[in-house]
Amino acid sequence: MSNNTLKNDRFIRALLRQPVDQTPIWIMRQAGRHLPEYKALRAEAGDFMSLCTNPELACEVTLQPLRRYDLDAAILFSDILTIPDAMGLGLHFVTGEGPRFKRPVSTLAEIKKLAVPDMGAELKYVPDAVSKIRSALNNTIPLIGFTGSPWTLATYMVEGGPSKNYSKVKGLRYQDPKAMHALLDVLADACISYLNAQIEAGAQALQIFDSWGGVLNTADYQEFSLAYMHKIIAGIHKEYEGQKIPVILFTKGGAQWLESMVDCSDAARPDALGLDWTYSIDLAKQQVGSKVALQGNMDPCALYGSDENLQLAAKSVLDDFYKSNQNSFGHVFNLGHGIHPGIAPEKVKLLVDTVHSHSAELIKNS
Amino acid sequence: MSNNTLKNDRFIRALLRQPVDQTPIWIMRQAGRHLPEYKALRAEAGDFMSLCTNPELACEVTLQPLRRYDLDAAILFSDILTIPDAMGLGLHFVTGEGPRFKRPVSTLAEIKKLAVPDMGAELKYVPDAVSKIRSALNNTIPLIGFTGSPWTLATYMVEGGPSKNYSKVKGLRYQDPKAMHALLDVLADACISYLNAQIEAGAQALQIFDSWGGVLNTADYQEFSLAYMHKIIAGIHKEYEGQKIPVILFTKGGAQWLESMVDCSDAARPDALGLDWTYSIDLAKQQVGSKVALQGNMDPCALYGSDENLQLAAKSVLDDFYKSNQNSFGHVFNLGHGIHPGIAPEKVKLLVDTVHSHSAELIKNS
Repeated sequence: MSNNTLKNDRFIRALLRQPVDQTPIWIMRQAGRHLPEYKALRAEAGDFMSLCTNPELACEVTLQPLRRYDLDAAILFSDILTIPDAMGLGLHFVTGEGPRFKRPVSTLAEIKKLAVPDMGAELKYVPDAVSKIRSALNNTIPLIGFTGSPWTLATYMVEGGPSKNYSKVKGLRYQDPKAMHALLDVLADACISYLNAQIEAGAQALQIFDSWGGVLNTADYQEFSLAYMHKIIAGIHKEYEGQKIPVILFTKGGAQWLESMVDCSDAARPDALGLDWTYSIDLAKQQVGSKVALQGNMDPCALYGSDENLQLAAKSVLDDFYKSNQNSFGHVFNLGHGIHPGIAPEKVKLLVDTVHSHSAELIKNS
Repeated sequence: MSNNTLKNDRFIRALLRQPVDQTPIWIMRQAGRHLPEYKALRAEAGDFMSLCTNPELACEVTLQPLRRYDLDAAILFSDILTIPDAMGLGLHFVTGEGPRFKRPVSTLAEIKKLAVPDMGAELKYVPDAVSKIRSALNNTIPLIGFTGSPWTLATYMVEGGPSKNYSKVKGLRYQDPKAMHALLDVLADACISYLNAQIEAGAQALQIFDSWGGVLNTADYQEFSLAYMHKIIAGIHKEYEGQKIPVILFTKGGAQWLESMVDCSDAARPDALGLDWTYSIDLAKQQVGSKVALQGNMDPCALYGSDENLQLAAKSVLDDFYKSNQNSFGHVFNLGHGIHPGIAPEKVKLLVDTVHSHSAELIKNS
């Protein structure tokens, strides 16, 4: 299958900093809890992981938002914690509290027992879902695959679940940095296998979710999060079946480190950086826009607003990006974080349509 | 009382960017939950607010860490939510869940009913505690007073307690920005009265805690948080009894906006900016070090580390600040956030002593 045959290739073009007629948009967590049809399916299936591990259901959930909104990309419905689950940590979900592991790790001895999972066995349901979704999409829009970053996966694996202060995982980092690196090493290798399996099954672009890199200090971000993401990017297929596979790196709370994210070998450099909403996309473009595309960055809470204020918020991101004519290609619109469960679908539709129409005007006049 | 008579005025001197022999250090939340003697007193008193509202107990808690550590400043033991409590919202604390308000506000009508509390009545316990502590300190080290920022207070007042996504308060901002401004206006006026009352009672320096300004986007930070903090600074006593009263502005997660924090009239400009641990203090010094002092910025989690790694972390903040010789005055050492409850007092002692000895060496050799 070739991207050349994609009916809508705006998303891929923007990631490769090629001209587009409208700014492409997709939304982190576009499939999931804000959609009534998702809630119905999930109630039927029982729990969250039953949806992820069943390729047919994962495919259905992936397609749900595409029936409502004019999105420019689909993203595999799955979870970043599939890798540690397949490593034997025992993932389960506690209602209202998020993910938990039955067997968190806290010592070098425990870490040394972890191995890269077999993508043809424990994790086979992931590439299976990817290939099913890819067939169902039928080259209308591209499919995004993803992984959590090694640091982000490690936070859950050491904390045993979500954390307020990251005291256990940072405790390990400050008590035994070598153990921390051993954990990140095996996770980076697992992420490489995982993303390659997704590419081989049909993923046409990738995102690395570094949800918790932003809780590190500047030196530690480089050493404990970014270095491993660069290693992953250098280790995965650059092209597949003649098509470039662009990679988006998204460190939430990491906008102060954008320059370091692109300061690496060409092989390790992401094609795009995701931005949360706390940074100016114009400033980001000035800093790194000659080297990478940018994705973002509307505050997800603007979707709670009146139609007028929501449209203002969406337009102001686009206006910011197009403020200067320099490096004017390479913007993918997104929220600065996943969409909240309480958002009304009509607001999402208004956002998608506003982004398309306002950007078409900006691009026409530029 | 005059600062000239302070036995240790390093903290004030550093805030005013005057030479010091050692870098002064204090620690956010230095009085409180990490100290066994605090836990004992709190168990006796019953609840948290009984300590805050009793000037004698608030004084005792303020002094507790000074008996253990060689700190360069004391800070009033209190809470940022005293103002909304005095406005009638009904503050109470739910164990393990933090502060809650019985009567949160969500409409313009409710907001219009709020008035600046009387500092000689509802909030009299705060200046009373300040003057008691000031007497007890007997001019050994200076006393810091504080307030929450209007935006930060507003988040609790609208959410009704701590929040994950700030969906209610940002919902109000995106639904009815005028109501949001009305709320911030009355809060800014209350903060001015509150800080002036603390100055008049003996506070020798002030900190504005903008704990949640960092959850806003760039434009909204300026409009909904920073503008009101500038208003407060311009509205409070610059000097009292012949002594300059320096003000520290601390927006957690706001390091990307440092330049905007000092880009204002002289009257509105803080004397120092607080930094959390996610930013390089060397970079911050290059950006704003000619205009303000800097406070920070070790990761609080380094206190979970081995002695060696904790010392490395403390020294690396100092080394970073002294990396360039430009604007070399004006550093107050602190954590990038409040100390965690689980930290062992011996680690804090090691930190304080390391900061003093290592900085004395750096300053001597500079």
